[in-house]
Amino acid sequence: MTNDVVTNATLVFFGGTGDLAGRKLIPALFNNWQQKRLRDCLIVGIGRRAKDRDEYLQLLDGKVGVAQTDPADWKEFTKQLDYHQGEIRTEEDFKSLRAKLESLEKERGLPGKRLFYYAVGPQWFAPITENLAASGLLEKQGPDYKGPWTRLVIEKPYGTDLASAKELDRRILACADEEQVYRIDHYLGKETVQNLLAFRFANGLFEPVWNQKYIDSVQITVSESLGIGNRGDYYEKAGAMRDMVINHMMQLVCLTAMEPPARMNAKSIRDEKVKVLQAVRVPQSLSEVEQSTVRGQYGPGTINGESVPGYREEGDTDPNSTTPSFVALRLQIDTWRWAHVPFLLRHGKRMAKRGTEIAIQFRTPPLSLFRGHEICGHCSNMLVLRIQPKEGITLYFGAKKPGAGMSISTVSMDFEYEREFHESIPEAYQRLLLDALVGDPTLFTRSDEVRAQWTWADAILSAWDEIPPPKYPNYPAGGWGPSAAESLFPQGDEIPSGSCPVGWRRW
Amino acid sequence: MTNDVVTNATLVFFGGTGDLAGRKLIPALFNNWQQKRLRDCLIVGIGRRAKDRDEYLQLLDGKVGVAQTDPADWKEFTKQLDYHQGEIRTEEDFKSLRAKLESLEKERGLPGKRLFYYAVGPQWFAPITENLAASGLLEKQGPDYKGPWTRLVIEKPYGTDLASAKELDRRILACADEEQVYRIDHYLGKETVQNLLAFRFANGLFEPVWNQKYIDSVQITVSESLGIGNRGDYYEKAGAMRDMVINHMMQLVCLTAMEPPARMNAKSIRDEKVKVLQAVRVPQSLSEVEQSTVRGQYGPGTINGESVPGYREEGDTDPNSTTPSFVALRLQIDTWRWAHVPFLLRHGKRMAKRGTEIAIQFRTPPLSLFRGHEICGHCSNMLVLRIQPKEGITLYFGAKKPGAGMSISTVSMDFEYEREFHESIPEAYQRLLLDALVGDPTLFTRSDEVRAQWTWADAILSAWDEIPPPKYPNYPAGGWGPSAAESLFPQGDEIPSGSCPVGWRRW
Repeated sequence: MTNDVVTNATLVFFGGTGDLAGRKLIPALFNNWQQKRLRDCLIVGIGRRAKDRDEYLQLLDGKVGVAQTDPADWKEFTKQLDYHQGEIRTEEDFKSLRAKLESLEKERGLPGKRLFYYAVGPQWFAPITENLAASGLLEKQGPDYKGPWTRLVIEKPYGTDLASAKELDRRILACADEEQVYRIDHYLGKETVQNLLAFRFANGLFEPVWNQKYIDSVQITVSESLGIGNRGDYYEKAGAMRDMVINHMMQLVCLTAMEPPARMNAKSIRDEKVKVLQAVRVPQSLSEVEQSTVRGQYGPGTINGESVPGYREEGDTDPNSTTPSFVALRLQIDTWRWAHVPFLLRHGKRMAKRGTEIAIQFRTPPLSLFRGHEICGHCSNMLVLRIQPKEGITLYFGAKKPGAGMSISTVSMDFEYEREFHESIPEAYQRLLLDALVGDPTLFTRSDEVRAQWTWADAILSAWDEIPPPKYPNYPAGGWGPSAAESLFPQGDEIPSGSCPVGWRRW
Repeated sequence: MTNDVVTNATLVFFGGTGDLAGRKLIPALFNNWQQKRLRDCLIVGIGRRAKDRDEYLQLLDGKVGVAQTDPADWKEFTKQLDYHQGEIRTEEDFKSLRAKLESLEKERGLPGKRLFYYAVGPQWFAPITENLAASGLLEKQGPDYKGPWTRLVIEKPYGTDLASAKELDRRILACADEEQVYRIDHYLGKETVQNLLAFRFANGLFEPVWNQKYIDSVQITVSESLGIGNRGDYYEKAGAMRDMVINHMMQLVCLTAMEPPARMNAKSIRDEKVKVLQAVRVPQSLSEVEQSTVRGQYGPGTINGESVPGYREEGDTDPNSTTPSFVALRLQIDTWRWAHVPFLLRHGKRMAKRGTEIAIQFRTPPLSLFRGHEICGHCSNMLVLRIQPKEGITLYFGAKKPGAGMSISTVSMDFEYEREFHESIPEAYQRLLLDALVGDPTLFTRSDEVRAQWTWADAILSAWDEIPPPKYPNYPAGGWGPSAAESLFPQGDEIPSGSCPVGWRRW
């Protein structure tokens, strides 16, 4: 959350020859450099594949689109780039890395402000950290530490359940202080996600109605039209819950539901987020899980006129797989602000359309003044915060239809980021890398957040292990998921007075 | 407020050969007829000019644009039209009118549901009524009356001060019951004005913040780019206050400020409107009037690159005229809902642009969470209800600027009537005539409303008679009125905490 320019830092990428580094991280740094937000840094990729700096640059040339479109700038930028061939599991290679970093930094007059980025599989998070520590590259740096810093940016997933997250914490925090650990969730780098804070707390109009007195329900949807593709190996173990709900979607829940922070700084904001996660009601029985969750797995279907295979026909999946590719959840946040307001989460692969949004459904007015007048069925106000594609905000409200009579019809007003600001939205990684470099951890996940998320998710995941899954496939590719997901909306007597249940929003 | 079809009514227009009838009223009836909202009626124009029906139709042909564009429909429509030559001041002519109506109604099998429309100067409102009564065309019809009805639609202005309005009431209500009197204010027929009721009371989102806790001020502007033209004779007596503030603008105040009515019917709505008018604080001294009002008169200037004369150079004005063509007022509504919220009214002729709007300025949030971050100067939320041109609603709010940092910038979302409903907005008169014909007085002004308006206006007008007017002209044509109007915004200690005063909105 800064406008600073980063200078004289050292960035080290584990997984430097991998896809994430080549397609996202290096381009993000390049864009920051072009926008003069990054100057005189040293960027070192670490990998097994390339032999030396020249070969590494050649490899990046193939991955980084900008190398072709902006060759002069790219050439200038790469003066900061270097390479170290090494094995993550080999302590020796870390000692030579240390020697290399010290020599390059000396050459360039850099003070040793070092950011280590873990762009590798989660099984390497702990070993890398331990090897960094063993080679003298990582020392704990408490809050009063004044010298040049060392920080770790750790990719997801951070554990696969509460126990593994705790064990990962134990190993990493044995080597580094929590303040040095930046657990990345690239969703938090997206403009609309950050804008949620501005929208809620910099405007006088919305916060007064942002509570259970006026809000009927909150729908958060992450809908993907793609299937799992060639990631079957990973996805069979993760499933929809670990892949998307933990981290991404729970972060959206936090930003939507949190109380105003005392200050606009990392500690205050993360304190409020963790309070939300701790207030999420943890299901206490199998039947509670059954009543508040719906699982799905896609069968063959059609998307945009094209036939696509079912989940079980994708590569590297079990032909009898019971891994969910869709999940819908009703969760309750036990705070004064959100009493009786269901937070409805929906995520699936191979859905009708791609899109991520938070839809705030407001209650209908307490008086039905327009009873007897023609009024649309879905009459209550809805505020939709679109995160992708076309980031923006739409407000649906009732207006009188022109002409005689008093008929109310739902109309909308719309705000679109790119249209308003006439500039393209920066990639999430561009922002997050900059934040980590200036030491602003606001948009990174703290240890207690991770644990609170897993506490809740574990209850569901372990119940699912015991409850027989639905007969899969239970939704066709190209649809909106299993119809059972509608059952999560409050029915009959459960409906708070004045509400206007509408089911899942489609778009 | 009805979707009914009007059949078998008799409409009689005093001023039937005048401009209002020819350019507005007859076309409005024709449009209603084309839209099948009016069937088998008898429409009788009364005037001195034309001799007979043929000459009257010929005269209308020249005034009514549709006669040319839609000749077949127009010809069919005119089968309902007839004419009566008569003098308003002559009782005899009313007796022959009665005979004529009775004979025409008998011929057509009409039951005698009669609407008399006073499309004439205000000096004739009482004489017409008395002559209608004297000729047996008008009998009081209390609430329990069951037979065919008689109604009077009376154009503005209804009195020129409290005393004259009372005197007019006395004479009219001696002949007719209040329920029969429809005092027209064509502003109330406009879509956005009616939509104010829908917007406020059919949505769950806005009413909770529609009060002094969240609203900082309300700006109502009626800005005209035209001068007084050839209406100097009328305008010298009326001035900006009587021409626009009384009636039109005070109606907008009422609809913005009123409490939710018990029911969506005429009585409940008008009860709430009159409560607002009665709560408007009446200035108690000359200095109160001086501090809460600003008068102006335009001098020569330029509008859209064209030189235009000053007020005193227009036709039929006094070269030393002290008649205001601009007025700005700060008024206070002494209710719990509106305590400390100034209602700022502004109206002028020969302003930079034409437009009517209600701008609701919300308070800034109670916490300045973004202190230290870049934030626009005019940071609080504003909701603008545009009444003309391009009826619609715009909401201004703060959003995060894309990219690093947390800078807040004002953006907007917009709703436009015609764009949304893909149909042209009906003329106000079209709606109001239909309402009067079906007996819905919601959008007409009741006697107690008129009196409450004058009670307040009299205090200002009589103070102005005593306070020397400013040195005129004090604003050039094509501007936004005298700069002194800014003084009406609360200054210094008067500013409620958390507010963000912005001065008059320009567009």
